[in-house]
Amino acid sequence: MKLTVYLAGEIHTNWREELQKKAEKKQLPLTFVAPQTNHDRSDDIGEDILGKQPGKLYKDAAASDINNFRTQVMLQKADVVIALFGEQYRQWNTAMDASSAITWNKPTIIIRPESLIHPLKELSNKANVTVETVDQALDVLSYIYE
Amino acid sequence: MKLTVYLAGEIHTNWREELQKKAEKKQLPLTFVAPQTNHDRSDDIGEDILGKQPGKLYKDAAASDINNFRTQVMLQKADVVIALFGEQYRQWNTAMDASSAITWNKPTIIIRPESLIHPLKELSNKANVTVETVDQALDVLSYIYE
Amino acid sequence: MKLTVYLAGEIHTNWREELQKKAEKKQLPLTFVAPQTNHDRSDDIGEDILGKQPGKLYKDAAASDINNFRTQVMLQKADVVIALFGEQYRQWNTAMDASSAITWNKPTIIIRPESLIHPLKELSNKANVTVETVDQALDVLSYIYE
Amino acid sequence: MKLTVYLAGEIHTNWREELQKKAEKKQLPLTFVAPQTNHDRSDDIGEDILGKQPGKLYKDAAASDINNFRTQVMLQKADVVIALFGEQYRQWNTAMDASSAITWNKPTIIIRPESLIHPLKELSNKANVTVETVDQALDVLSYIYE
Amino acid sequence: MKLTVYLAGEIHTNWREELQKKAEKKQLPLTFVAPQTNHDRSDDIGEDILGKQPGKLYKDAAASDINNFRTQVMLQKADVVIALFGEQYRQWNTAMDASSAITWNKPTIIIRPESLIHPLKELSNKANVTVETVDQALDVLSYIYE
Amino acid sequence: MKLTVYLAGEIHTNWREELQKKAEKKQLPLTFVAPQTNHDRSDDIGEDILGKQPGKLYKDAAASDINNFRTQVMLQKADVVIALFGEQYRQWNTAMDASSAITWNKPTIIIRPESLIHPLKELSNKANVTVETVDQALDVLSYIYE
Amino acid sequence: MKLTVYLAGEIHTNWREELQKKAEKKQLPLTFVAPQTNHDRSDDIGEDILGKQPGKLYKDAAASDINNFRTQVMLQKADVVIALFGEQYRQWNTAMDASSAITWNKPTIIIRPESLIHPLKELSNKANVTVETVDQALDVLSYIYE
Amino acid sequence: MKLTVYLAGEIHTNWREELQKKAEKKQLPLTFVAPQTNHDRSDDIGEDILGKQPGKLYKDAAASDINNFRTQVMLQKADVVIALFGEQYRQWNTAMDASSAITWNKPTIIIRPESLIHPLKELSNKANVTVETVDQALDVLSYIYE
Repeated sequence: MKLTVYLAGEIHTNWREELQKKAEKKQLPLTFVAPQTNHDRSDDIGEDILGKQPGKLYKDAAASDINNFRTQVMLQKADVVIALFGEQYRQWNTAMDASSAITWNKPTIIIRPESLIHPLKELSNKANVTVETVDQALDVLSYIYE
Repeated sequence: MKLTVYLAGEIHTNWREELQKKAEKKQLPLTFVAPQTNHDRSDDIGEDILGKQPGKLYKDAAASDINNFRTQVMLQKADVVIALFGEQYRQWNTAMDASSAITWNKPTIIIRPESLIHPLKELSNKANVTVETVDQALDVLSYIYE
Repeated sequence: MKLTVYLAGEIHTNWREELQKKAEKKQLPLTFVAPQTNHDRSDDIGEDILGKQPGKLYKDAAASDINNFRTQVMLQKADVVIALFGEQYRQWNTAMDASSAITWNKPTIIIRPESLIHPLKELSNKANVTVETVDQALDVLSYIYE
Repeated sequence: MKLTVYLAGEIHTNWREELQKKAEKKQLPLTFVAPQTNHDRSDDIGEDILGKQPGKLYKDAAASDINNFRTQVMLQKADVVIALFGEQYRQWNTAMDASSAITWNKPTIIIRPESLIHPLKELSNKANVTVETVDQALDVLSYIYE
Repeated sequence: MKLTVYLAGEIHTNWREELQKKAEKKQLPLTFVAPQTNHDRSDDIGEDILGKQPGKLYKDAAASDINNFRTQVMLQKADVVIALFGEQYRQWNTAMDASSAITWNKPTIIIRPESLIHPLKELSNKANVTVETVDQALDVLSYIYE
Repeated sequence: MKLTVYLAGEIHTNWREELQKKAEKKQLPLTFVAPQTNHDRSDDIGEDILGKQPGKLYKDAAASDINNFRTQVMLQKADVVIALFGEQYRQWNTAMDASSAITWNKPTIIIRPESLIHPLKELSNKANVTVETVDQALDVLSYIYE
Repeated sequence: MKLTVYLAGEIHTNWREELQKKAEKKQLPLTFVAPQTNHDRSDDIGEDILGKQPGKLYKDAAASDINNFRTQVMLQKADVVIALFGEQYRQWNTAMDASSAITWNKPTIIIRPESLIHPLKELSNKANVTVETVDQALDVLSYIYE
Repeated sequence: MKLTVYLAGEIHTNWREELQKKAEKKQLPLTFVAPQTNHDRSDDIGEDILGKQPGKLYKDAAASDINNFRTQVMLQKADVVIALFGEQYRQWNTAMDASSAITWNKPTIIIRPESLIHPLKELSNKANVTVETVDQALDVLSYIYE
């Protein structure tokens, strides 16, 4: 049973590569897809394709059109969603992706540090599983194949 | 055409009362519903009903069970959702409510200050309308009845 | 059996008033809802609420946010949709509303002049009924109550 | 991640071939499907299969039965929809296809010239991304694979 | 708990009136809706509204447009569907209505004589309950209110 | 905001009456609906309406046809579902009703004694809230109206 | 674009083999699936698996359990449904399969002789295309690949 | 036509291996998936991954998070569900899985001993087919490929 896993969230650390490598070592038949993790490219994609916009609001609107398009394509292909929240940013798009996924009945794992238990409590409650480390998320994925 | 409006988000200011009063003045046939806005009650509701839990994680889990139950009942009754993001908190449950509502095809308005344009860009992009003030949100609601 | 009827399309003639009056004469228990029929207000609503935009594209984008919000609220309340196409305009939003309605399983009537048979053939084919006059559409509505 | 892309709209120019060739050059794993682009065949298909009909209305009805059947098969297989509007025709079936696709949650790109900004504003607003050229649409598709 | 009951099927006997009267006697809070039971009107409705058609096929097509429109409006309002099959006719539209209703999760009762057990076995199997008489169907409806 | 509450489960104690009385005292705008709580009537309803069946399997099949019909009507009307599991019986129909309700996105509360924590753990996990007493369930309902 | 085609209806002629052979000759990438076409096996399958039943009603109920199971598996795999009605039988299960397929948005073709235009008019109206011969149905399938 | 079959239920006997072997012998193109059948591992999985929990309730909650995640992934991949009920346990999670599957329109077979006819009557009634032995379930699966 091959599965496609969408890795939402935090783009400033290399947790995706870490997860992917460990999954390969375990020979799990998983394909990982992810949002644009190059922050500048993600912010500029609207202007990169559509040209200069008349201000920050419009630049952001153009970029989010295309980022949401990309995410929607991937989320619909995904069998499982993992969303990682880091301590630094607001990451409302991560909360949005996780919530869309859950509403579409995609089995969802949240990874978040202990410090975020309280602000993420409602979202954790809706997700299937909440863990604190990438290794724990991998353990949950492995468990599917036991 | 009577409508039920769910007011998600920010619970530390009185924007809900403000909106409600102005809507009444305009005699719009709207019923407003909202999450628990007493912050302590919302945090304690799990232990208030289920009794002492063995630590913060479990207290939060119990509370979010009941808060999400309440929200789900109301969101499903709502014809329109308005989500207000303030500058201070992470408000991931607000992002979650807005995203569920959008995924369920509920027409959705976001209210956020100019300073949050960038972090909210993907969610704004999915909502129907994004405005900066409660008065503008009311203008959008009024427009339905013109 | 009370029904809510959404009247999409053509806003430069008074076909909505005509239909409504005739329905009242026949004492059909129908409530009619409609898009903003004041063309200028509909075009300006984005700037009216959100303020001056930096060009026509952005003005149009802001207006369509709010017009689509309004339509979505009404379409979801509607039990029946009637879409009237006139000879003059492109009316792609009318085609869009009718197509959304049909995809959501809303029983749909199209009114179009004989001259539009060919360009509307695929949409007519998906709608339940296509007629040429407002009176015929009213006859179809009346038939529900025979 | 292989994707199937349905190319709705304009059938009198060779934009589909252009897009397809450029996508192949970039080695994107895309399969393109499209409506019948031979205009005469598309208009005559009803009579070609079902025999002579008693007038233009009936000829068109028979053709649209079969064209809509074909489109529905393809749209349901598609992961992404691109709809191109040209300046000349009314293209209500294109608006219909795009609107059905959006209502079914298919990620959708609209291509339209600057001159059509105003009449297409509501549909653009519902689509994920609106661009002006085939190259820009290809850039959006490529962005999925970065 | 008020319920709307759609009475599909057989239009040449007065089973609907019988059921309605008995339900009134029992003071069940039920509203009954039904297809056009005047056979000629039902067959002629297409030409009555749209004018003379060029042959029987086209007359039937026009009538079924409007009859299906009417049924779709009513089925979507219905909480319960009862479909009665008589011995004489083919009643494929009754089978179609019952099957649509079941696919839309409408609780459905079939009434059919013993002689039709075999040809209706698959449809009976999908419906919630199959009975032989109008009185038995009424008993099932009454049971809701015990 | 009036709500309809379906009370699934245990039929040998008077927990429904208890809950209903307490809700009335608190003047909560709730309407309660429930399965047939007369055990014999529930077991015999198939034969009561359809006549003697050729053995226990067939008697049970006939009864469950009609009990499931009744439940489906009520579940679809319900805004909230409460399922109470007692210690004695297997109550697989209660588990079935709760699971259907959850899959249909009905906000769901489970009431079960401490002794059933383990066997009900997966179902509790899917429900919104699990409590141990009828009073706690009432507290959760009341919380909606705070 | 490979497609799976479910062939509902008439089991006493060899139209399925005919269609399949002609499709192979045209090298269309189609996989055909079908109901049990051995009439006796289809009628007896309940008793064949579950053992002797206490009468015709129960034998039929057992058979239809298993036939409907089989059909549901296949219909859900199918991209296209073709339903052929012959002149002789009542074929309510064919009407049921076609109606389920249409309600699930499966593109559907009906094949029926001229003599059945009238009794099948409502179902024809809901299907995408109605033709009179197997060859015409094949033409419609071929048209997808032009 | 390859199919994936989810085998819910009873984990203390080797019925899954038996079914799988017999299916292989018949060369049916079936892939079987199943819940964790190692009872201890299934009970401990929460603590195995998330660490020691503060009591049995919390240990069970953590385990069911992960078991339900696993089941949801598999159920959504499954084309067919078979649920076996044994005589000994309460197996409410089996009833839950079967009921979810049925509500999601997954064709479902129940296997249960004669002694469980009565307590399982409502669930049997909703499933497509109920049999008493693994061999009969295999017969039903084989029948798909006749």
